[in-house]
Amino acid sequence: MRTRIDETGLIELIRRRAAGQRRDVLLGIGDDAALLECPPDRQLVLATDTLVAGVHFPLETIPFDIGWKSLSVNLSDLAAMGAEPAWALLSLALPDPDPDWVAEFAQGFAALAGEHDVALVGGDTTRADQLVVTVQAAGFVRAGGATTRCGAAPGDGIWVTGTLGDAAAGLAVVHHDLDAGDAAGYLRSRLDRPVPRVRAGRALVGLASSAIDVSDGLGTDLGRVAAASEVGAQVELSALPASDGLRAVAAGRSLEAFQLAGDDYELCFTVPGEREAGLEALRELRDCGFTRIGDIVVGEGVAFRRRGRPAQPPAPGWRHWNDAGAPDA
Amino acid sequence: MRTRIDETGLIELIRRRAAGQRRDVLLGIGDDAALLECPPDRQLVLATDTLVAGVHFPLETIPFDIGWKSLSVNLSDLAAMGAEPAWALLSLALPDPDPDWVAEFAQGFAALAGEHDVALVGGDTTRADQLVVTVQAAGFVRAGGATTRCGAAPGDGIWVTGTLGDAAAGLAVVHHDLDAGDAAGYLRSRLDRPVPRVRAGRALVGLASSAIDVSDGLGTDLGRVAAASEVGAQVELSALPASDGLRAVAAGRSLEAFQLAGDDYELCFTVPGEREAGLEALRELRDCGFTRIGDIVVGEGVAFRRRGRPAQPPAPGWRHWNDAGAPDA
Repeated sequence: MRTRIDETGLIELIRRRAAGQRRDVLLGIGDDAALLECPPDRQLVLATDTLVAGVHFPLETIPFDIGWKSLSVNLSDLAAMGAEPAWALLSLALPDPDPDWVAEFAQGFAALAGEHDVALVGGDTTRADQLVVTVQAAGFVRAGGATTRCGAAPGDGIWVTGTLGDAAAGLAVVHHDLDAGDAAGYLRSRLDRPVPRVRAGRALVGLASSAIDVSDGLGTDLGRVAAASEVGAQVELSALPASDGLRAVAAGRSLEAFQLAGDDYELCFTVPGEREAGLEALRELRDCGFTRIGDIVVGEGVAFRRRGRPAQPPAPGWRHWNDAGAPDA
Repeated sequence: MRTRIDETGLIELIRRRAAGQRRDVLLGIGDDAALLECPPDRQLVLATDTLVAGVHFPLETIPFDIGWKSLSVNLSDLAAMGAEPAWALLSLALPDPDPDWVAEFAQGFAALAGEHDVALVGGDTTRADQLVVTVQAAGFVRAGGATTRCGAAPGDGIWVTGTLGDAAAGLAVVHHDLDAGDAAGYLRSRLDRPVPRVRAGRALVGLASSAIDVSDGLGTDLGRVAAASEVGAQVELSALPASDGLRAVAAGRSLEAFQLAGDDYELCFTVPGEREAGLEALRELRDCGFTRIGDIVVGEGVAFRRRGRPAQPPAPGWRHWNDAGAPDA
């Protein structure tokens, strides 16, 4: 038998687990709004992202991972800007105010928040037919120090952090579309508990000419950089990085389809040739790995190549708006 | 036949209508996050509130009003802190990406945003089974100038802006539980398009010892002030302000039930006796009206009186967590 709990009880339960502590939080959870001290000589960076059950994560995802991922996708947006995260707000619309579920959710949120010294300073809990989690994250960059989508220039190299495709393969595992054997657990963890590249994003400030996080699929997201920067992008499909786990279960076009499907929360960034030497010096980048996957060119849009020859990619990026299916494996 | 539209199209549609313009928005909608310039010598105030269709507004509410109300309930939170609003983020989870609906929603949002010079700087649109709207509002107070819930002291008067009960009566009209005749339109407008008391809240900075917005019902919200301030509150039920429209259709205990039901987005604030004379001088308060409804006392909790004698209020505050029904009329 489960205990019922009212909104005040839920908020207190979340506060105890996830509030965190920062000296710049003058008033956190518990008033009409949070009261916060902004550091001088910094610009504020604000992002928001929503996760809907069954659309952005499988219905069977455990609450700890939903809590983690709801913050992670927002920290990933801050990471793309090169921002240092500071505060978050959480809005939880849920069908069933089960305190055990909420406590586990809050622990997942807090686990990631603690890694990045993020304080949860406010939020809202409401009843809804479907679980909908909206998080807003706030952070800071030095004045003029943000990395945006619009600075890519012809001649810049295109890079990504980490590896691509694990999350989509993890989703295929959930949907029983992929028998991943020993790699199943790893692929699921990449889907359910993505690691936002906050340290890499901050380290890239001043080196990268543009950055974006690969959440909607490399083609879609790189297309946004190309449009904002008024350039074209050429991507070599055979250069896309893949984990050992993914390589063990997919090859050729099926590998590419996973890699282009999105939900990876890696950073895609561009770097002028004369600054490439600086990349190796960045411990934060070496920690997560980074790979050159193409070139910014004069033109528009994203063109793919396979071993140097023009190629059609095997699947479009994963659009959350459509069905959240994995690409064909 | 309706046109289908993808997420990028929806965001562009919202941006065109509701983005607004402020010089402190360095980068608004269209990157991974917004980039904002905080004013020096100010503290940041952040609030978030979610509206769920059928819980926080009737399913038949027109999209313009849903857009308006989703921002209004957040500006009301900033108002309670005495903050000047600046920016908002919008997360829209909706079952049906109908561009006409979204355009009307954005117009309602923009109508209120324009009145308070609020720029929409970012957001997210997702598909969900049910309409869920989350807004985050950011604003500023002078350092040390926020009005919180914890400054009420014994001897302070308890006041509210405007009138109470119209929104609950408007909901009863929607549910065919109340025949409001000529007043029906007015009562509906108070439910669907609440006016956040931003100017009153800012004017009260330095005068009010505490403030909260009356969204969950006077008893519940005043109880939060009493708990945060470690005091008791005594409220005279016959002193609660009511609109002419509400008085025309409700009297006695039915009137009180509406007045205590919540969703009014008026401010409830406390003022030390020696500062009461200052209230009359505030044009922003005279514009919306304000009424003394009780006293802060030594003790705890909220006690109600009716013409000076201890009384049981007719209904608990309207808890969104439970069914969003109107009190019995």
